[in-house]
Amino acid sequence: MTNTTIATSATGTDARTTTPPADAPLPDTGAGRTAVYAAPAPRTPLERSTVPRRALGAHDILIDIRYAGICHSDIHQVDEDWGPGIFPMVPGHEIAGVVAAVGAGVSRWSVGDRVGVGCLVDSCRECDNCRAGLQQYCTGEGGAVLTYNARGRDGAPTYGGYARQLVVDEQYALRIPDALALDVAAPLLCAGITLYSPLAHWGAGPGRKVAVVGLGGLGHLGVKMARAKGAEVTVLSQSLRKREDGLRLGAHDYRATSDPATFTELAGRFDLIVNTVSADLDLSAYLGLLRTDGTLVQVGAPEKPVAVGAHALLTGRRSIAGSMIGGLPETQEMLDFCAEHGIGAEIELIRADQINEAYERVLRSEVRYRFVIDAATI
Amino acid sequence: MTNTTIATSATGTDARTTTPPADAPLPDTGAGRTAVYAAPAPRTPLERSTVPRRALGAHDILIDIRYAGICHSDIHQVDEDWGPGIFPMVPGHEIAGVVAAVGAGVSRWSVGDRVGVGCLVDSCRECDNCRAGLQQYCTGEGGAVLTYNARGRDGAPTYGGYARQLVVDEQYALRIPDALALDVAAPLLCAGITLYSPLAHWGAGPGRKVAVVGLGGLGHLGVKMARAKGAEVTVLSQSLRKREDGLRLGAHDYRATSDPATFTELAGRFDLIVNTVSADLDLSAYLGLLRTDGTLVQVGAPEKPVAVGAHALLTGRRSIAGSMIGGLPETQEMLDFCAEHGIGAEIELIRADQINEAYERVLRSEVRYRFVIDAATI
Repeated sequence: MTNTTIATSATGTDARTTTPPADAPLPDTGAGRTAVYAAPAPRTPLERSTVPRRALGAHDILIDIRYAGICHSDIHQVDEDWGPGIFPMVPGHEIAGVVAAVGAGVSRWSVGDRVGVGCLVDSCRECDNCRAGLQQYCTGEGGAVLTYNARGRDGAPTYGGYARQLVVDEQYALRIPDALALDVAAPLLCAGITLYSPLAHWGAGPGRKVAVVGLGGLGHLGVKMARAKGAEVTVLSQSLRKREDGLRLGAHDYRATSDPATFTELAGRFDLIVNTVSADLDLSAYLGLLRTDGTLVQVGAPEKPVAVGAHALLTGRRSIAGSMIGGLPETQEMLDFCAEHGIGAEIELIRADQINEAYERVLRSEVRYRFVIDAATI
Repeated sequence: MTNTTIATSATGTDARTTTPPADAPLPDTGAGRTAVYAAPAPRTPLERSTVPRRALGAHDILIDIRYAGICHSDIHQVDEDWGPGIFPMVPGHEIAGVVAAVGAGVSRWSVGDRVGVGCLVDSCRECDNCRAGLQQYCTGEGGAVLTYNARGRDGAPTYGGYARQLVVDEQYALRIPDALALDVAAPLLCAGITLYSPLAHWGAGPGRKVAVVGLGGLGHLGVKMARAKGAEVTVLSQSLRKREDGLRLGAHDYRATSDPATFTELAGRFDLIVNTVSADLDLSAYLGLLRTDGTLVQVGAPEKPVAVGAHALLTGRRSIAGSMIGGLPETQEMLDFCAEHGIGAEIELIRADQINEAYERVLRSEVRYRFVIDAATI
């Protein structure tokens, strides 16, 4: 086991590559604390503090976090929109960094490896889904262990990526290929896989017509990926405000859902619609855009149940499905795919002291297309 | 072209085989009228009358109807539950009979052939779906032509199977194998294919766990078919009232949905759930019974939109789909499958003058499991 930090330089596809810390100290691999930005209580601003960091176990790696994306679900969890949270809460499940130390039994990783961590840091590893690499659907007791606002199998709270360091089981880290800059790679770990998984599962590719509903943090990656997979891609957005962006990112067509003509002109057109919008939409209208045997996939979870006219399902053997991030093998496949096709998130890099302001802007949909925190500023 | 009625004797699997009419007259193949039971106006009792019957075209066959099943949708259409109807209305789209005459250009059929007609009597024949044998999802102008309460491509109203005779395009008739008695075969043309199609499409078979929600005219055929396909079959019914029937028909398990324990004990169990119940169910609860990648298929159309918790879809990549009858090739496949496996409907044979009483009993769910009208009594 080595305990030397080896900084790597990212050979990213854009100018926002990581720079090695010049004065990297030897990492402490015992139990300790790490600097974070945390919400001390529900619905409170995030502030700088520290939280416990477990000692490096035999199969753990210590990651020096370089970048962490801000996902809308971070805000939902701080605000307890989905139920009681564990506080202090350190959000962040779009994590990109560099391995700073490895446990005695670690074989997959070396110090200096460029790694990512997404929404999961553990799962039962024994259920059918875990064995099939679908850890996100782990059916073991309590399901998969989320990266933050959860409890590990040791009962200790998990803390996320708005932090300087993270200790994680080696099995739950992903390799970030050299061709991807770490900052634009970070959002791939949640937003990216959330779109990649349904595109892959429902066969987006040549000869298939795919619509992405909503051009935000999720949708913009869906457009890039669906295009790279060879599908014909249409963005369905409330207005044409981001049309130029959408076409630049790879969409073949861009339509406003506020225009009723969209629903008549595109009736029966798509094999697959991926809905990234959590707001209450008239899904029956969107189902009408599917051809026979087409599928509308929800990747966001509206708070209210979605209402669906059964007629729209019956008249074309259409489906509504749900999809949630992706398993570890597919997340690695996605990172490799993105590296091959030069796909990263479109990001706005911020300092940690801008997180609360960024949250406000996310809530106002004022981000193109993902905020990423420079962890050096934490 | 022959115009002689040749009566066939059905070599059915039970005692309810058809008997040939002893005094069959030469059929009249010109335009004429046929005896029917019709609703003269919305929400009125059906009564004996006559309606026009078109002249036999080159590609038409004249069918002497022997039996017609009563489908719940017949009542919905007479009652205009789904929109304005065309009156007088002759319901009936579960039709079994014998070919009495064939048009000059007919090659597929001979007088005496045992045939069935289901929900469709025509479609555009040119769209992708028609070419693929999915006529039920015809995307041509106006879609498929329904067997009654519709207008043919000549603009004339269509009249259904509560009748002595029917003229239909030869392409839209199905062969009823000799091993199936005509009376128990009639309900297969709608109820049967409505269940067979989703079971086939979503792969009910060995190693797969299938639930059928509701043990009625549709559900009881679903149980028989799913069992014959080799799946493990569970009935989910409001109560255990029909449990013995369900097990006799082939179910391995039978659970009451009024018992909350059903939803905990069977959580994550099924690959496929076919919901035959049109009443408003808590579909999110049923989704919880699906394993990862499982599908809940609606074959009935509730009047209100169905509400679905997106969470139930997301947490196991589950789907809700719709399925509507079946195309002509699949309907033939279903009839052949039923003949091979000795599957007919469980029926109560009635006289035409009992139709109105039967409607009342259908509305009270007092039929095990399908009323079939003896057309000789019309």
